Amino acid sequence: MKNMIIGQSGGPTAVINSSLAGAIEYALSRREINTIYGMINGIQGLLDGNVMDLTKRFRNKTVDLKKLMLTPAMFLGSCRYRIDDENEMKRIVAELQVLDVGYFFYIGGNDSMDTVRKLADYVKKNNIAIKVIGIPKTIDNDLYGIDHSPGFASAAKYIALAVKNVSYDTSIYSTKSVHIIEAMGRDAGWLAGSAVLARSNGLSAPHLIYLPEIPFSVEKFIDDVKSKLKKYNSVIAVVSEGIKDENGNYISANSSSVDRFGHSHLSGAASYLKDVCEEKIGCKVRYLGLSVLQRSAGHSTSLTDIIEAYNLGVYAVKSALNGKNGVFSTLIRASNHPYSVEYTTCDISVIANQVKHVPRKWINDKGNYVTDEFIEYLTPLVAGDTVVPYINGLPDYLDISHLDRKQQDTKIEPH
Amino acid sequence: MKNMIIGQSGGPTAVINSSLAGAIEYALSRREINTIYGMINGIQGLLDGNVMDLTKRFRNKTVDLKKLMLTPAMFLGSCRYRIDDENEMKRIVAELQVLDVGYFFYIGGNDSMDTVRKLADYVKKNNIAIKVIGIPKTIDNDLYGIDHSPGFASAAKYIALAVKNVSYDTSIYSTKSVHIIEAMGRDAGWLAGSAVLARSNGLSAPHLIYLPEIPFSVEKFIDDVKSKLKKYNSVIAVVSEGIKDENGNYISANSSSVDRFGHSHLSGAASYLKDVCEEKIGCKVRYLGLSVLQRSAGHSTSLTDIIEAYNLGVYAVKSALNGKNGVFSTLIRASNHPYSVEYTTCDISVIANQVKHVPRKWINDKGNYVTDEFIEYLTPLVAGDTVVPYINGLPDYLDISHLDRKQQDTKIEPH
Repeated sequence: MKNMIIGQSGGPTAVINSSLAGAIEYALSRREINTIYGMINGIQGLLDGNVMDLTKRFRNKTVDLKKLMLTPAMFLGSCRYRIDDENEMKRIVAELQVLDVGYFFYIGGNDSMDTVRKLADYVKKNNIAIKVIGIPKTIDNDLYGIDHSPGFASAAKYIALAVKNVSYDTSIYSTKSVHIIEAMGRDAGWLAGSAVLARSNGLSAPHLIYLPEIPFSVEKFIDDVKSKLKKYNSVIAVVSEGIKDENGNYISANSSSVDRFGHSHLSGAASYLKDVCEEKIGCKVRYLGLSVLQRSAGHSTSLTDIIEAYNLGVYAVKSALNGKNGVFSTLIRASNHPYSVEYTTCDISVIANQVKHVPRKWINDKGNYVTDEFIEYLTPLVAGDTVVPYINGLPDYLDISHLDRKQQDTKIEPH
Repeated sequence: MKNMIIGQSGGPTAVINSSLAGAIEYALSRREINTIYGMINGIQGLLDGNVMDLTKRFRNKTVDLKKLMLTPAMFLGSCRYRIDDENEMKRIVAELQVLDVGYFFYIGGNDSMDTVRKLADYVKKNNIAIKVIGIPKTIDNDLYGIDHSPGFASAAKYIALAVKNVSYDTSIYSTKSVHIIEAMGRDAGWLAGSAVLARSNGLSAPHLIYLPEIPFSVEKFIDDVKSKLKKYNSVIAVVSEGIKDENGNYISANSSSVDRFGHSHLSGAASYLKDVCEEKIGCKVRYLGLSVLQRSAGHSTSLTDIIEAYNLGVYAVKSALNGKNGVFSTLIRASNHPYSVEYTTCDISVIANQVKHVPRKWINDKGNYVTDEFIEYLTPLVAGDTVVPYINGLPDYLDISHLDRKQQDTKIEPH
């Protein structure tokens, strides 16, 4: 009987804790696993001896596990830590051996999966009896080896929801206006494209969507907006933060302004385009960055996303107990009508350090909207509305005050 | 038997349509009222002959009325129109007489209630048989003559929810960071103060709250943030867009930067304070403007707010039929434990063109947080979680495509 350890790494999503809940709940039910440890702040926490006893925290606490499943961000905290050399790897493995760990799980995106790959390679090469498994997550949906990334659907749903609410808000005046909404997505346009789902209940918005996959022309953008203003009073354009011009330069790089301290600011693509619209069109123009709200909206997640994230946590632990090593748990879309997925594993090298783009044919010819194929792919992912418990009018998330204070407060002695 | 007309005016909230639904549903049940007209884009629409037959639209459409109750912004569209002279007033009254209107209702904030006051005075003075009634709304909660304004509670709930989600998001790193979140509220700090409700589930955020009622000192702000950073890794400060220095100048006025076109920008208080924090503290600093999202979040409204807004619509129509004129429907808090309100009317002159501030004793001595009295006042208002119907993963709001297109499409001939 061995112990297991689990950590979270990279940027937050609304459903990473659901994967954690799945892994913990399944592990608690299996006799092969003794104590479940959690790394506080990922690999960094492991190296600092900052480890939490999750068995003690969650055994016989089904209500807390359910809450964990619906709590956004990361119960265990995160880090952005790259393993640089073999000495560091030795220290990590030594820490794992002190804790008698036989199963190592890491929930993260491309970068974190690179850590998983390196650790898996190392333990295999050195015949160390630790199974190393990745559990994927990212709102960006740019991971290879998986139909869609856990966390993406909830962010997509939030973006569509925000665009829909803003469209209702902006519809009320009979004067002309332009709203430019910026979604995350440095390299891939999955999130910006998701805004298309706002177009329901007779709403024409969003009118324009720009993804980083297509070279962005400011002149063409202005023409597009002018053209839409002929038909609609209020035009809503959604841009990815990562849109680039034909030379590959970020549009946001144009937005530099100088503050009172003489600092140059990169205020973002939407902010820059607002300035251009005001200059070239002259009507009321507003921009709106959805910022971290799009990845932390635990109150409006996709139930499909929550369940899939949970299942990927379960499947990772199951796979480790079945002897898998150096893989990540993943899902394949088995069918779209009705929507169903199958869980499996994939070699970790497939996912690490790569970017999956939106296919060109899922973007229209003009490069200013997504096609029906995109909508067909996306629609089932946002389905199902998570019922979060509320208390005093606000979501009753799990207490994470162990992350809120200085790190020394959370240290526990390893068993 | 007379006709009635109703309009919406000013800025949107998430629950104005609930007041509209209440007024329509009650009016449909009363024999004294023949046709219910809706002004498209308020008084402006009335003058342009842009009027909609709401009886036709909603009679025997209970599902649509229910949807209307839960749809944010304004089904009838808005305007910002001030009646300037008696000639204009004569034109308005003439339009109302053509439509055989006996009851006039206007849903709006301070400015719109000024329109109601002027119209009520005019019809009284000239013995014209039209009852003129206001129905209050504003997210700013700065109206006199009412315990709290419909729309405020849902915006407050959204702000607390956003701050809570952002707090979870920012908690995950063990490095120091500061987040400055800007809430609406040009003159009163009700919305910024509402962020206090995020402080639940063991969360310490928000750590600092600044309202326009207290002169703002940038130096003191930096000291406050530094002091909180000693205790917490991630500090969250909420500021009202309307914070002013001791000379009464908006802090946002300091934020002017110059864009590539040479335009001077007022990018807001939070944006300016971000620059200052980066300069004086040096850790990671981010700012976040909640922008129109805080007034349009139809998916996460307060059920208390939805119900009260509806009831104020009902009560306005009831009061008109009981012979009231030149009043607005209002509510008085009868009790806090258990929370209950009583509906009544108040003379329109009480509400028009005034601003109700947060009482000084509801703000702490240091001027950087709200007190328990504020929390006691606010807590019951956000209670109850509206269950919005969803379709394909997104809220199934009422179709408002009549506002989406150019105005001529929506014109109907008066009966």
